[in-house]
Amino acid sequence: MDRQKYTIALLGGTGAEGSGIALRLARAGHRVIIGSRDADKAARACSELAGLAPGAALSHDANPEAAAAAQIVIMTVPHAGQQKTVQEVREQLAGKILVDATVPLVPPKVARVQLPEGGSAVAAVQRLLGDAVRVVSAFQNVSAHHLRDLAHVPDCDVLVCGDDPEARETVVGLAADMGLRAWHAGAIANSAATEALTSLLIAMNMRYKVPGGTGIRITGLEETAEARRT
Amino acid sequence: MDRQKYTIALLGGTGAEGSGIALRLARAGHRVIIGSRDADKAARACSELAGLAPGAALSHDANPEAAAAAQIVIMTVPHAGQQKTVQEVREQLAGKILVDATVPLVPPKVARVQLPEGGSAVAAVQRLLGDAVRVVSAFQNVSAHHLRDLAHVPDCDVLVCGDDPEARETVVGLAADMGLRAWHAGAIANSAATEALTSLLIAMNMRYKVPGGTGIRITGLEETAEARRT
Repeated sequence: MDRQKYTIALLGGTGAEGSGIALRLARAGHRVIIGSRDADKAARACSELAGLAPGAALSHDANPEAAAAAQIVIMTVPHAGQQKTVQEVREQLAGKILVDATVPLVPPKVARVQLPEGGSAVAAVQRLLGDAVRVVSAFQNVSAHHLRDLAHVPDCDVLVCGDDPEARETVVGLAADMGLRAWHAGAIANSAATEALTSLLIAMNMRYKVPGGTGIRITGLEETAEARRT
Repeated sequence: MDRQKYTIALLGGTGAEGSGIALRLARAGHRVIIGSRDADKAARACSELAGLAPGAALSHDANPEAAAAAQIVIMTVPHAGQQKTVQEVREQLAGKILVDATVPLVPPKVARVQLPEGGSAVAAVQRLLGDAVRVVSAFQNVSAHHLRDLAHVPDCDVLVCGDDPEARETVVGLAADMGLRAWHAGAIANSAATEALTSLLIAMNMRYKVPGGTGIRITGLEETAEARRT
């Protein structure tokens, strides 16, 4: 299915997870803007990604400018920077979809679930932004290693949570463009599960020595109509 | 591998999930005692399960007596009854492993994650019981439907959380006896993820119309030594 192409800002797009998402979206034909506070770092990330996906529409800008130019904003920042980043682009987000991939890890015990008060990091963002922004969470469980390896299909499903079903559907489509299988997983409050799950995957990476990283698959859905469609 | 056989009490063993676990453990050669406050109900569950697993060592008793006679106690009660059940068998648990499969669903919105204050229902149980009992959580994500269908291998992994690695290992072994693939998934605090995940699976069962129930698989572990061993 030929889906709509978007202009997408990747806030925190110079990190491993963000640049992996940027790479796959750009390769799929979306126009991608790497947002960063560090222009030099963003320029380097851009040219590195351009080398991996020749001909892709990749650029970079400061976070507010990137968010202003985008139709969809994806955020992949460390948990400590999540609220600050949201405040920085708040005005530019009005009417748009914000896809949050933030995982509330608390170093150094990143293999231990330590959810913030209120249960979910992204649910707090939705409360902060209110109805003006449709907040969706996704991509917390996909290893950056697998995202950047374009030769392979990541063996990991994407669980998409959000209070607006249409916004979720848009993100399910973006994930499919990236070569990932994605599912509607309920309300934004349900992100507590996907945020927490990352620490379990890290614990298993450590215990079972999985360098590329573990992932998850949802079973029982293979035969559904929506699975066949994407 | 021929693992040790245990005497195992199933508190809440007359419910769908509990009786499914009881059935598979009994079929694997463990001695299983169905614990219940309702002797008639427990007797009926026992004879039903005996019909499904002829020759299995199945009996029933009140919760405290069942827990007293058992080496390992498994609890599959509704969240509202969790603390009360633990209080009821507290003395009988000393020195034993308590496997908690409780999912903190809050009806009627069972497809919405609503974790208790403190983040995890079972972590609260471990705090309550202290060091005298080794609390492990498991089985929150395996559909009862799949457990009771002995003709099929459930397409769902078991994530085993607990602060005591040896106790976790025992439960990984029990899951393997039941025909399930199981993994060490870190500290008891990590149960927040498995407890929460059940609501996402319910949300997907509803949206994608999966009558038997969705499940999860952890990917990337197929080639590890521990995976081959079980």
